[in-house]
This record gives sequence, C-alpha cells and structure tokens, in this order.
Amino acid sequence: MKSLITHCRNFKSEFDGFADRPQGIVPQELKEDKWQETEAVVAFITVEDRDRIKEVSQLMVEELYLIANEFGRKKVVLIPFAHLSSNIANYKDALSFLDYLEEGLKQKELDITRVHFGSHKSLLLDIPGHTGNIRFREF
Amino acid sequence: MKSLITHCRNFKSEFDGFADRPQGIVPQELKEDKWQETEAVVAFITVEDRDRIKEVSQLMVEELYLIANEFGRKKVVLIPFAHLSSNIANYKDALSFLDYLEEGLKQKELDITRVHFGSHKSLLLDIPGHTGNIRFREF
Repeated sequence: MKSLITHCRNFKSEFDGFADRPQGIVPQELKEDKWQETEAVVAFITVEDRDRIKEVSQLMVEELYLIANEFGRKKVVLIPFAHLSSNIANYKDALSFLDYLEEGLKQKELDITRVHFGSHKSLLLDIPGHTGNIRFREF
Repeated sequence: MKSLITHCRNFKSEFDGFADRPQGIVPQELKEDKWQETEAVVAFITVEDRDRIKEVSQLMVEELYLIANEFGRKKVVLIPFAHLSSNIANYKDALSFLDYLEEGLKQKELDITRVHFGSHKSLLLDIPGHTGNIRFREF
C-alpha cells in the first residue's frame, strides 16, 4: 500500500463517470456524487497486489490517527487512488482495505468522508504550504 | 523516476519556506515565489536514486509531449516532488533531471512553468473529472 497524505484547507470531488479499468473492476454503488470537506486530512490510497489487508490497514489507522492529531484535525477524507503504483490490488481487496481503514478510524473517533471507489472524479485540493503538508507512506 | 501527471484547469503554488530535508539538500535559488497556470498539464516528478538521468528524462519528454497533445495543451508545469518514492535521488541528480526535462520540452515548443526545487509550498489543484485526468508513470 502506498499513500499520499495531505492537509487540505478545502477539498472537493465530484463524480464524473464509472471507471472501466483495470479490467473486471466492479465500482461501488454510487450513493453520493459529491464530496466536500474543509480543514481535513486527505489520504490518497493505493492498495497493492499481495498487501496483507488487515495488518496494513491497521498500520494506516495508526498513522492517520497520529497525523490527524498532529494537525489538530478530526476529519479524514479517504480517496481510493489507483495512481501510486504499477501493481495495484484487485478491486475486492482494495475495497476490503478501505472498509477496514474506515472502521478503524471511526473507532478512533475520527469523522470519515469516503470518496467513491471505481470512478473518475474531479478534484479540488487546496493545501497550505507548511512543512509536512504532503507525506508519502508505504507499508 | 515516478510521476503523477494531471490536467489542471487551475494551478497555483506559493513558496512557504526552504526545505531542510533530505539531509544535505541545497535548494535552488529563489527567483519567484508564486507560480500559477491555467489549462495546463501539471507533472509531479520524483527522481529516484540510480535513475539514468539522460535516458529517463528523454522518456518523460516524449510522454509529456504526447499527453499535452492529447489534452490539446501547450503549457506544462513541472513540480519537483519528493513524495512518490522512499528512495529519492540526491538533489544534484534531481536538478539535472529537471534541467534536461525542461530543455527537452522547450525543444518541443511547449511553454514550461518550473516550480522551485527545495522548498515547501502551498498547492491549489483544480482537476476536471474526465477519464485519464490523473496518470502515473514510472520509468
């Protein structure tokens, strides 16, 4: 799993269309088509082939919890993101990972916005310039 | 080298402070402290240890040229980005790579905005939702 973790003053995303790649992908049911948050930790998450889903999602829960505390934020946005690796997991494993991650973060009493899996979307990111505003994690 | 390549309706970045990591980094001289572009291809570029600078920069020139043509854009923004790998190049190699890349793209008659190397910066990205709006390349 690879992740870019940012602190956003403002985050917006809007559904544009379902993805048809990688081959065989089954997108999540679309319950909302817009996502928006302010002053949140925004994590782009690429689950990779052969990731140990339970263990790695727990490492990410702890990491995101630490970063949210460091920024003094209670809000975390999780964005499925296929673009940090050339070796991504199948969609079932990716969704399982995101489910575990969401559940673990909710147990830490963080507010979670989960962006749709299996679509292309617009993105608006407004990231302040402080040190550590963008971090890369690989577990 | 790893790169995230996006098509931005609007891109802004502002200098916040010089980076002091990785150890030994010598930032570029700061000639401007704000960068802005509209309707541009925006490439985040992580040069990695042991990249063959000349060969790989040429591959990226060709790739960015193709993508700019596909989007019908003449403007390319190059952002040095340390956050796509855990194994980044030393700053001299990273700067050489960016120099080659800029030069090669100018020879293709593209307009280049080059964002400062060796600083933390704010980022505003406004990315439309179409297919292929974000791409990952690894050479």
